Amino acid sequence: MRAIVYQGPGAIAVRDVPPPRLEDPRDALVRVELAGICGTDLHVIAGDFAGIQPGAVIGHEFVGVLTAIGSAVTGFAVGDRVMASDFTACGRCRCCERGDHWECPERAFFGTGTSFGLPLAGAQAEIVRVPHADTTLGRMPKGCSDEAAILLGDNLATGWAAVERSGLLPGEIVAVIGGGTVGQLASLSAQAAGAGAVIVVEPSEGRREFARANGSLAASPQEARELASRVTDGEGVDVVIEAVGGASALTAAFDLVRKRGRIISVGAHAAETWPFPLARSFANELTLGFAIGDSIRLRPRLLSLITTGALDPTVVIDRKIGFAAAPQTYADLKAQRIMKAVIDPRL
Amino acid sequence: MRAIVYQGPGAIAVRDVPPPRLEDPRDALVRVELAGICGTDLHVIAGDFAGIQPGAVIGHEFVGVLTAIGSAVTGFAVGDRVMASDFTACGRCRCCERGDHWECPERAFFGTGTSFGLPLAGAQAEIVRVPHADTTLGRMPKGCSDEAAILLGDNLATGWAAVERSGLLPGEIVAVIGGGTVGQLASLSAQAAGAGAVIVVEPSEGRREFARANGSLAASPQEARELASRVTDGEGVDVVIEAVGGASALTAAFDLVRKRGRIISVGAHAAETWPFPLARSFANELTLGFAIGDSIRLRPRLLSLITTGALDPTVVIDRKIGFAAAPQTYADLKAQRIMKAVIDPRL
Amino acid sequence: MRAIVYQGPGAIAVRDVPPPRLEDPRDALVRVELAGICGTDLHVIAGDFAGIQPGAVIGHEFVGVLTAIGSAVTGFAVGDRVMASDFTACGRCRCCERGDHWECPERAFFGTGTSFGLPLAGAQAEIVRVPHADTTLGRMPKGCSDEAAILLGDNLATGWAAVERSGLLPGEIVAVIGGGTVGQLASLSAQAAGAGAVIVVEPSEGRREFARANGSLAASPQEARELASRVTDGEGVDVVIEAVGGASALTAAFDLVRKRGRIISVGAHAAETWPFPLARSFANELTLGFAIGDSIRLRPRLLSLITTGALDPTVVIDRKIGFAAAPQTYADLKAQRIMKAVIDPRL
Amino acid sequence: MRAIVYQGPGAIAVRDVPPPRLEDPRDALVRVELAGICGTDLHVIAGDFAGIQPGAVIGHEFVGVLTAIGSAVTGFAVGDRVMASDFTACGRCRCCERGDHWECPERAFFGTGTSFGLPLAGAQAEIVRVPHADTTLGRMPKGCSDEAAILLGDNLATGWAAVERSGLLPGEIVAVIGGGTVGQLASLSAQAAGAGAVIVVEPSEGRREFARANGSLAASPQEARELASRVTDGEGVDVVIEAVGGASALTAAFDLVRKRGRIISVGAHAAETWPFPLARSFANELTLGFAIGDSIRLRPRLLSLITTGALDPTVVIDRKIGFAAAPQTYADLKAQRIMKAVIDPRL
Repeated sequence: MRAIVYQGPGAIAVRDVPPPRLEDPRDALVRVELAGICGTDLHVIAGDFAGIQPGAVIGHEFVGVLTAIGSAVTGFAVGDRVMASDFTACGRCRCCERGDHWECPERAFFGTGTSFGLPLAGAQAEIVRVPHADTTLGRMPKGCSDEAAILLGDNLATGWAAVERSGLLPGEIVAVIGGGTVGQLASLSAQAAGAGAVIVVEPSEGRREFARANGSLAASPQEARELASRVTDGEGVDVVIEAVGGASALTAAFDLVRKRGRIISVGAHAAETWPFPLARSFANELTLGFAIGDSIRLRPRLLSLITTGALDPTVVIDRKIGFAAAPQTYADLKAQRIMKAVIDPRL
Repeated sequence: MRAIVYQGPGAIAVRDVPPPRLEDPRDALVRVELAGICGTDLHVIAGDFAGIQPGAVIGHEFVGVLTAIGSAVTGFAVGDRVMASDFTACGRCRCCERGDHWECPERAFFGTGTSFGLPLAGAQAEIVRVPHADTTLGRMPKGCSDEAAILLGDNLATGWAAVERSGLLPGEIVAVIGGGTVGQLASLSAQAAGAGAVIVVEPSEGRREFARANGSLAASPQEARELASRVTDGEGVDVVIEAVGGASALTAAFDLVRKRGRIISVGAHAAETWPFPLARSFANELTLGFAIGDSIRLRPRLLSLITTGALDPTVVIDRKIGFAAAPQTYADLKAQRIMKAVIDPRL
Repeated sequence: MRAIVYQGPGAIAVRDVPPPRLEDPRDALVRVELAGICGTDLHVIAGDFAGIQPGAVIGHEFVGVLTAIGSAVTGFAVGDRVMASDFTACGRCRCCERGDHWECPERAFFGTGTSFGLPLAGAQAEIVRVPHADTTLGRMPKGCSDEAAILLGDNLATGWAAVERSGLLPGEIVAVIGGGTVGQLASLSAQAAGAGAVIVVEPSEGRREFARANGSLAASPQEARELASRVTDGEGVDVVIEAVGGASALTAAFDLVRKRGRIISVGAHAAETWPFPLARSFANELTLGFAIGDSIRLRPRLLSLITTGALDPTVVIDRKIGFAAAPQTYADLKAQRIMKAVIDPRL
Repeated sequence: MRAIVYQGPGAIAVRDVPPPRLEDPRDALVRVELAGICGTDLHVIAGDFAGIQPGAVIGHEFVGVLTAIGSAVTGFAVGDRVMASDFTACGRCRCCERGDHWECPERAFFGTGTSFGLPLAGAQAEIVRVPHADTTLGRMPKGCSDEAAILLGDNLATGWAAVERSGLLPGEIVAVIGGGTVGQLASLSAQAAGAGAVIVVEPSEGRREFARANGSLAASPQEARELASRVTDGEGVDVVIEAVGGASALTAAFDLVRKRGRIISVGAHAAETWPFPLARSFANELTLGFAIGDSIRLRPRLLSLITTGALDPTVVIDRKIGFAAAPQTYADLKAQRIMKAVIDPRL
């Protein structure tokens, strides 16, 4: 089958690779009809992650049709159209029972080596193998497009996780650090959850414009504090969602939050430690939380919002390609010339 | 001063009456700049309420300017522009401490006789006396118009109380029985709080049209069940808000709700008992709750939503008059020729 | 195998019946090591329920050891010790995903005919067949006795469901109507969840004594109002849990609740309608909700409380028998000579 | 009047000082009947805080009788017995309206100089002046002893604030770092709020013994991780409450918490920054929050728990003295020879 494969640090290619097969009674095979390209893939390509060998299929966002299911997969039939979480979980352990699928000991993350769990081939391919299929996969309901389902499986789940973890109350003011895909989806999530106003903080004027066109206020990092102050009458915002990753984005978040406010980070952090503003956080009773999207847990709620039209995540998708255009599209993504691309293997 | 006064069952008039004076150290006097006309006033005029004598000033929605404050009123100064709750509460007792101002033993409701508490002259007047002024009144922040503040003091607080009591989760589907002012504001409240879709159930095509123009779906009572079923894939809605009052509206609510759903009634109910669908409510784990608007408790949250533009209640106001036009406007309200009118005493 | 079977209205017997077999890939067979006798079984025996034929095995509470599992059952192995929910659910549909297993279209309730779902043979037997086994069954963790697990599967889940639905806040005052097994477990649940005080309302002095010995206050129906008033300084209790069923128990609940309070009913109700106190519920902003235990959803939380010792439900068990003593024990239960009995098939 | 006064770093004395007078219409004077000695006072005495001059009265915990009230104080009368918050707030501003009294711009903290707000004379005196009296003071209800009220005003509010901020669910496992007064009260609070088990981590065997005698498990810092692991089957605790202050206590907290767990710090922190474990907190979705007791907001809830007997904070008090014994008692407190002392000015 055709697939996008890692070729060593910095290089990818479209290649023919052997198609996957069922390996376990809970496996399923999905014929991919749409796959997403994610900023995380840039790290895979760069060679930042462990355990990924040249020749490995990348990608972790997909929707498609079931072509085979193992004997222990229930609730699905061959031919069903399905969406998928970007990682798999057993659905049976104590963590999964509590809704913490990310903590499942059997977690595997599609197409990212071993950095986030057990190794598992990626989804930018004609066929993808899905372990623990009845937990990992979801049915495609009426009113959910393939594009929306791709986003639900990863980026939107991440943006929503921030809102969920923040305990947002209707009318609260939110700042989002970063106007990339996750930041924009966090903004749309906050709006859908009843935020009073959302300020997207982003250096790129184009992305600020995008934010404004999609219901947010927007500010450059230099303007952010003044805008936050103006909107909140000097108090600072109730909630900051950090959607960039890295220490400087966290520090920027602390610059905007009000006393007793909450900072939720969904950006990735590799530094072992970071100089946390301790005395101030104590005096101002701040909260700092980290959240990772869990499409398995969040799927029912997000599907409600999508199918009623209360939340349309697909606005972030600005390119649709076939496999052949993938290398160029990755280059465009890296250069921020596009926001979010999807691959239709049939193009 | 000029005021709208009750003249006996069915009759009102614009009259000169003696202006109120401070009677208690916690009193304040407000020069009314805008007063609202409410469906509840129709009951006052009809003579439905106890303890209201001919000559009494009616009305319970107002904003204005403080012209005098008692010695025990803190946090306000003469000249401050203020909004008001439609009822007063002491702010100091155990109920008020818990946020249950409606249960305050010193509750008085402006311009409605003794049906809802201690007697208190109404607000459709040039000057109104406000007991427990620092609890009953609120400051007018930037970004809150007089019209929005009028609604916050009563009808919007009622609509929001339904949403608050329902424990609405983002994405849930809501039906609102009744497309009058409270029903429409309940719909806007539900939307602002993250509802997935809202269905306003209302016999008047004009009011259904209004609902649709303001973000809801709409259905006639005959069509409601089918629309609810279509939107929810046959399950029934998560939450029904009953905003009409009376037994038949409650029964209609039970017709739309899903299993384990919640029905919240903010319509008024005078019947001592009502044949509750017991076996079905048990089998389907239904919840029925009643809520009354509490503008004192809800003011901060609603002001957040109003000042950020997330919720604009003023769309329901379709007439602004001076005192002289009040009798005709009440007739128009009774005949449902208008939705919501406000009085500017200076016109 | 030996089992307790329904012999027609009013009659049961211990009989040899054919053992069940796996009928579906998601089935499992459990060798029962302990089964519970429940008040609901008295209705089965009385012939109150539909769809139960003479010769049918009764009983719906059990723990035991897996002796066979279907090919689609994951997460369990033959030989595992398991606890069970009193009803089964598919674990895969939209209702189950939301945690509403009781609404699952494939619900079947062990040993109660067709009154609560699909027919399914009961658990007062040496072997029981469990559909949808990996959803219906739970693992037995360290620190959970067989007796506790029996209760978790039904009566405790019911008592806890009331507390969960009430939204109990720490320090709130709770009244429980009925001092039977469910009422006592509701009392223990409320205590474990942070209630300030719990008042068990119960005509039997012995059961009141039991309640007092297990951390509650207690009152006869005649004394209840006075005690509730004394404990709450005249306000009425925050939450009433109705654990008897029937209209008069509901009416008693309304007699004790404070303004803005919540009444949660977990008793069974067969009457089609009931004269609900409408005007008062509106004026006092009351909430009435119904809840049914869902051991599948509540299992993780209840296991936390049980294994830490924060909640010991086993105090209600006052008799342990073999099959032979079952007929006499049912008679004793009907006459309220015992509170809760369990059957060990090996005795 | 007699009072305990600061004499410069390291020194206190019992002195005659001029009694306070009403200075503002919202002031009240309280004749102190019981005052508390708090660990924070040791910092005052050590000279750690700004803005406190030799001769200043110290202390911030008290109950007593109103002897004079300003003209704008409502809801109280001379002769009323009252409890007090350790800091005052206006009760009228946007922060106070939201329940964030600690953020009130008019905050003043009794007897601690200017480190926590506006300067205000302390409460270890025969008479104390109380600004914003009707917000700062609370009525003494039946069933609340003077000792309990002293604790509610500061240490218990702090312990409870941690539990409130943690969002504790019934059955969750809590570790408390530190077995001093606040740590023990946090443990009692967690138990009262439904914790499954509480582990107090404390180097002093005597304090561990105290914790065990009051419903907790206990471990030395060296044993803590093993005990936490044993109780949680290797997962780590759901919630850690840090009740010591300083960086090493925070680090200890991170050592015990499970993935997706919450750490709430109520200890004091003076370090500007602290090396926060960033990569781990991201990978494990941890939350770190800081909370400060707010007796004004928490009073109703804590009084519910106290008056019903669900929470008895007075177990921590192990000495009651007159003024004369205060210097020796402070020395004993500093040496950890006692846990909590109270002063009766009439002894």
